[in-house]
Amino acid sequence: MEFDTIAAISTPMGEGAIAIVRLSGDEAIPIADKLFKSIGGKRLAEVATHTIHYGHLVDPKSGQVVEEVMVSVMKGPKTFTKEDVVEINCHGGLVSVNRVLQHVLTNGARLAEPGEFTKRAFLNGRIDLSQAEAVMDLIRAKTDRAMNVALGQMDGRLSKLIRRLRQEILEILAHVEVNIDYPEYDDVEEMTHKMLKEKAHFVREEINKLLQTSQQGKILREGLSTAIVGRPNVGKSSLLNSLVQENKAIVTDIPGTTRDVIEEYVNVRGVPLRLLDTAGIRETEDIVERIGVERSRQVLKEADLILLVLNYSDKLSVEDEHLFEVVKGMDVIVIVNKTDLPQQIDMARVHELAMEHKVVTTSLLEDRGVDELEEAIASLFFAGSIEAGDMTYVSNSRHIALLHQSLHAIEEALDGVEMGTPIDIIQIDLTRTWELLGEIIGDSVHESLIDQLFAQFCLGK
Amino acid sequence: MEFDTIAAISTPMGEGAIAIVRLSGDEAIPIADKLFKSIGGKRLAEVATHTIHYGHLVDPKSGQVVEEVMVSVMKGPKTFTKEDVVEINCHGGLVSVNRVLQHVLTNGARLAEPGEFTKRAFLNGRIDLSQAEAVMDLIRAKTDRAMNVALGQMDGRLSKLIRRLRQEILEILAHVEVNIDYPEYDDVEEMTHKMLKEKAHFVREEINKLLQTSQQGKILREGLSTAIVGRPNVGKSSLLNSLVQENKAIVTDIPGTTRDVIEEYVNVRGVPLRLLDTAGIRETEDIVERIGVERSRQVLKEADLILLVLNYSDKLSVEDEHLFEVVKGMDVIVIVNKTDLPQQIDMARVHELAMEHKVVTTSLLEDRGVDELEEAIASLFFAGSIEAGDMTYVSNSRHIALLHQSLHAIEEALDGVEMGTPIDIIQIDLTRTWELLGEIIGDSVHESLIDQLFAQFCLGK
Repeated sequence: MEFDTIAAISTPMGEGAIAIVRLSGDEAIPIADKLFKSIGGKRLAEVATHTIHYGHLVDPKSGQVVEEVMVSVMKGPKTFTKEDVVEINCHGGLVSVNRVLQHVLTNGARLAEPGEFTKRAFLNGRIDLSQAEAVMDLIRAKTDRAMNVALGQMDGRLSKLIRRLRQEILEILAHVEVNIDYPEYDDVEEMTHKMLKEKAHFVREEINKLLQTSQQGKILREGLSTAIVGRPNVGKSSLLNSLVQENKAIVTDIPGTTRDVIEEYVNVRGVPLRLLDTAGIRETEDIVERIGVERSRQVLKEADLILLVLNYSDKLSVEDEHLFEVVKGMDVIVIVNKTDLPQQIDMARVHELAMEHKVVTTSLLEDRGVDELEEAIASLFFAGSIEAGDMTYVSNSRHIALLHQSLHAIEEALDGVEMGTPIDIIQIDLTRTWELLGEIIGDSVHESLIDQLFAQFCLGK
Repeated sequence: MEFDTIAAISTPMGEGAIAIVRLSGDEAIPIADKLFKSIGGKRLAEVATHTIHYGHLVDPKSGQVVEEVMVSVMKGPKTFTKEDVVEINCHGGLVSVNRVLQHVLTNGARLAEPGEFTKRAFLNGRIDLSQAEAVMDLIRAKTDRAMNVALGQMDGRLSKLIRRLRQEILEILAHVEVNIDYPEYDDVEEMTHKMLKEKAHFVREEINKLLQTSQQGKILREGLSTAIVGRPNVGKSSLLNSLVQENKAIVTDIPGTTRDVIEEYVNVRGVPLRLLDTAGIRETEDIVERIGVERSRQVLKEADLILLVLNYSDKLSVEDEHLFEVVKGMDVIVIVNKTDLPQQIDMARVHELAMEHKVVTTSLLEDRGVDELEEAIASLFFAGSIEAGDMTYVSNSRHIALLHQSLHAIEEALDGVEMGTPIDIIQIDLTRTWELLGEIIGDSVHESLIDQLFAQFCLGK
């Protein structure tokens, strides 16, 4: 395909040492050449691909120096977009990088839309849609494990699985064709039915397996929204601080890291907790009384995980018992805090109320029990250890929805086989399954969906 | 000089398409080689300088893929630091870039201190101190002109001037030496005195010229702190909005630009106004009444420029007259707003009160007079047009202070000449001038000062 030449700032905005203005398209090198003056008078059109050149950007009209730059020239197709790509590295100030971009734009490039570079990588066939989506997941990853999931997906791990399944379906469809074309051979029909059942079964199981990873995948990708509930003074803030302090290293503890971006996330053994800060959730003291059990449940509906905190050195109160009612049916870990003080609580009753939920005793003051709590959180959502590196997780809501639809379609097909439905009806369900799976990797998607997907990207990617 | 190998994230923190981890030092390439796996098995140690290589970072211990990267290899001395430099371009997420940095650090690099890359460029003799300081000015530049000043300084324009002056002083000193060594030749002494006077005069004038640029230079660099004062309802907010709206393009109006960083700056014809938002300054309505003229002056002390707004359709009030008292002796532009309404104000009295200050009439409602106001602001601080591109502005406080000290020293020398002070005493003042000028370009500065200067840099530069 052929497109015009786009340009955008590809580094985050802000003050930094280096910023990058990226160009992609047939005119990328000529446009850069109009502006670039190397010390030795070298032309970018003549340099080898994948080389770096020092010099100045000079306004061709005024002759004035615009910036001191390093220009990287990468000729297609071995580039991110498969097109010619030029990266202009300049000083990382707002004025500097905008000035470079402006000159690139006034000399023939068009400002790229968000995600347009990745979109071109997709449209030019370098990556499929699920890989393109993984690029953005990778940038937005909040934990190491989430990044590993994205890396795996970007590497085409999910795509490979999906392609294999579609291949299986194609083979079934081919057999079905034979059957329809030669209905006079009874044995072919019988063979076809048997094979069809077997293969469709296999496809269904594989889709199921993928869907089983989706809850964990979504948690890794989006974080586990977590609410801390409990009466006043049971230690809710201490719990919050303890989790934040011990686990602030979602991103490693390097000066310059913008705390703002990440401070709502806490990384507990690879599980990113998104601590809900809804009014009335962290401060649940009187919420049950005030708004009643049913409405409290509504408030907590958003939460994937409830940490219910009780006071070890106080008797169970009516409010405590109410809280258990509120969180009924949710994923709950019960924390009995303040074991440093004399016991007043009836632990037998706690276990009774907690039912199947895990109960952990802690003294946040003395930093005891936190390990056990973290273990409980991790094992509640990930049986065994998470080794995202070795496994394909489905984490993207769009993919999950498509897998659910595919599952439904293949089950319809299987039902048809069981019920002896005419094979050309079954064929429709199979084709539908094949198409739905194709949408995951972008083999059969509408242009409008593609536009919509890439619009969620950040600028310059 | 030889240093260890340092590494840092060189792009701003945040979500973006690309982030860069930069390494500098003898081990930069070997460390990158430990981690980098290209598709073809290429070793970075063997590649040509200034080339770019696609591949993966792989943890050498676990064999797990860390990131998909583009690695730029630049061998010294033709690099920013004159050392071997490796830039690892990875996906611009927090986890991604921190993970790459972590692996670089655990494989032998040390985390760079802020400014350490530029410090090495200085210590390795690629740039002098004033050029190094310009790097940071360039990154922090708030307007195009400020950036041009920084670019010129980085290019060594100030350094060249300073070097020429020091050369002049050295020549005087050489003559003085001759005089001291051969005191028996009367004519030498006479010649020396004459020459000394002439040359020292020249040096003084040159220093003076540089200092004359410093007010403008500082304004370009740091912005002109501006307060808008006036009674309620004269149009202070309209004025603010009008200035912000017409000039929001300090950095050009590109999506993704963080407004936060810049919104306090307004670019009026290349003059960056920093609009003061001190309580009681934008809202001066009753401040004079409340706290009195003297204390109001204190509040406004921070401001370089006062925009005093009056109401064209209202009589001058006692408060208005008070305001004129408050701003006495400051740089003021008087704005008579609301010319769209019938005149009530006594313009003769306004001009009388304004004395030498410029008076501009506006109708902010009808967008009239704003051009004239902007012209007034620009010409108040810059006689004629500012063409920073063609001129050397001294903008850095450290440089300005050193120039003042040099001026003082050279004037002492000149006084000495006038008063017939023994020439070896004059020699001391001349040497002092030479040393002080040297500090600007870093020829004679203490290590502790250097450390302190570079510590103000951003990380990764």
